[in-house]
Amino acid sequence: MIDFTTAPLRVTVPDEGWLERLAAIDSRVELEVWDVAQPQPDGHVALAVSTYRNATDGLERIDPQRLGVLQLQTLGFDGVEAALPAGITCCNAIGVHEGSTAELAVALLLASQREIDAFARERPQWNRRLTASLLDRRIMLLGHGGIGGEIEKRLTGFDAELVRVAGHRRADGRGTVHGSDELAGLLPRVDAVVVAVPLSETTEGMIDDAFLSALPDGAVVVNVSRGKITDTDAVVRQAGRIRYATDVTDPEPLPPDHPLWTTPGVLVSPHVGGMSTAMRPRIEGVVRHQIHRLLAGLEPDSVVISA
Amino acid sequence: MIDFTTAPLRVTVPDEGWLERLAAIDSRVELEVWDVAQPQPDGHVALAVSTYRNATDGLERIDPQRLGVLQLQTLGFDGVEAALPAGITCCNAIGVHEGSTAELAVALLLASQREIDAFARERPQWNRRLTASLLDRRIMLLGHGGIGGEIEKRLTGFDAELVRVAGHRRADGRGTVHGSDELAGLLPRVDAVVVAVPLSETTEGMIDDAFLSALPDGAVVVNVSRGKITDTDAVVRQAGRIRYATDVTDPEPLPPDHPLWTTPGVLVSPHVGGMSTAMRPRIEGVVRHQIHRLLAGLEPDSVVISA
Repeated sequence: MIDFTTAPLRVTVPDEGWLERLAAIDSRVELEVWDVAQPQPDGHVALAVSTYRNATDGLERIDPQRLGVLQLQTLGFDGVEAALPAGITCCNAIGVHEGSTAELAVALLLASQREIDAFARERPQWNRRLTASLLDRRIMLLGHGGIGGEIEKRLTGFDAELVRVAGHRRADGRGTVHGSDELAGLLPRVDAVVVAVPLSETTEGMIDDAFLSALPDGAVVVNVSRGKITDTDAVVRQAGRIRYATDVTDPEPLPPDHPLWTTPGVLVSPHVGGMSTAMRPRIEGVVRHQIHRLLAGLEPDSVVISA
Repeated sequence: MIDFTTAPLRVTVPDEGWLERLAAIDSRVELEVWDVAQPQPDGHVALAVSTYRNATDGLERIDPQRLGVLQLQTLGFDGVEAALPAGITCCNAIGVHEGSTAELAVALLLASQREIDAFARERPQWNRRLTASLLDRRIMLLGHGGIGGEIEKRLTGFDAELVRVAGHRRADGRGTVHGSDELAGLLPRVDAVVVAVPLSETTEGMIDDAFLSALPDGAVVVNVSRGKITDTDAVVRQAGRIRYATDVTDPEPLPPDHPLWTTPGVLVSPHVGGMSTAMRPRIEGVVRHQIHRLLAGLEPDSVVISA
């Protein structure tokens, strides 16, 4: 690795706004704009901050001889390894989106249960009716990584019983985290499932007919992971028996004529889990942190693909 | 008071469903159906459970010589003292609605900030955009009674700063509860206000032009108290500058042609704060508790109007 403690550190950012916000960071840093989907600047770039949208666009055209580290603005990096040429270190955005995405998961769960989306669509009709509360219910948190932990923190005050599930059974200070091999026995006993697992060969399509059929009538599934986690056709088939509230779909954007939009009991938000006012200060914090590490001659944090 | 430890205890409930659910309570209890808006049964009733809807309907026709205790199913009892003849003990439903109403307050706050209601109305359009998160925000909890405490409990995990306001300044284990005389100085510094104060001469119309004007641009006000707390015309005048999410209106039901339905940034749910699956087990618990107190020769709990 180049010794940035003596040479200037060349850093690219995806737009002019970033230039202003990072302007005062350190006299040893040379900042310029590069949208990584656009032609690569001449010379070597130490650290390039990717765009937030379309994180994989154009990555395959990057010359690894002229880029050290690619800093993603996203937590998920599915598709990046396939697109990115070997020889570039890639880091994801740990700590940027977890809280905001967990907040949206709770917002979707509450909105679906208390029928806020339905009341919004039914206006100006005053359709008073009994809705479902989280009180006394069992809520499964499926996935116990960064987002799952933030969901747990937010749901702790709602007087529901939380049933935590991760890949493998373990225990922590708050009790048992069940293993995914226990799912079949747990699903019939829960009223809600909040899904926050990463997309992988194991998790793709896991919310299928068998999964949904194991849930009791009236249960709700909330998905803030990836659209491909869910077999959308199965959700459409179970319409009326279960509810589904999702921030992610397959494909995205969800086309206007897709049946999921009008399936009864389905609530869709347009992949805005991390896209909130919480994002900017946190991603800037991550970039500043990585710059200071490089200036100090250290490897960047949160490496998901090694050079 | 009659000594119910020797005589049978005559209890009325508002519908047949209640008869079944309380059937096994105690051999000394005589249960029958009386909707208190309907003609009163002959003879003396020790405890009458009111209807949940229209809590004040027909109360003025009750003969106080033939009713000992009226148990409301609601927490609020505005209008009951004016309607109920003197000589009847009246109890409100403490512990029944607080959690469910607080949950709805958080649901409305999150839905309004993350624009869940707007996304629901915009379907099938995938209108991805930046929304507001609670992360890093200051949220005022206005009113620190039973509902306010439950709201605080639920919002604790959302990484927001809570600014608590009650009638008079005090402190508890979690810090300062500000007094309402500090409102003018606090409002310009908060991003959200969740209102959970009882309706009184002091609080009626308190969310007025001056209150709303003191809030910064983009602030949201959530109301799970009573519609009359808010000057609705002022909310309509501030449209676009502030958001308003409310479970209560003035009048109720809100007529279809009322401007509040279509004011930008306004979200209305049809007074369903307490009307959730959490209600039945809790109100039954309260009635059972009151019956056991009367059987033991004790005064009922939660008396809000003394005989």
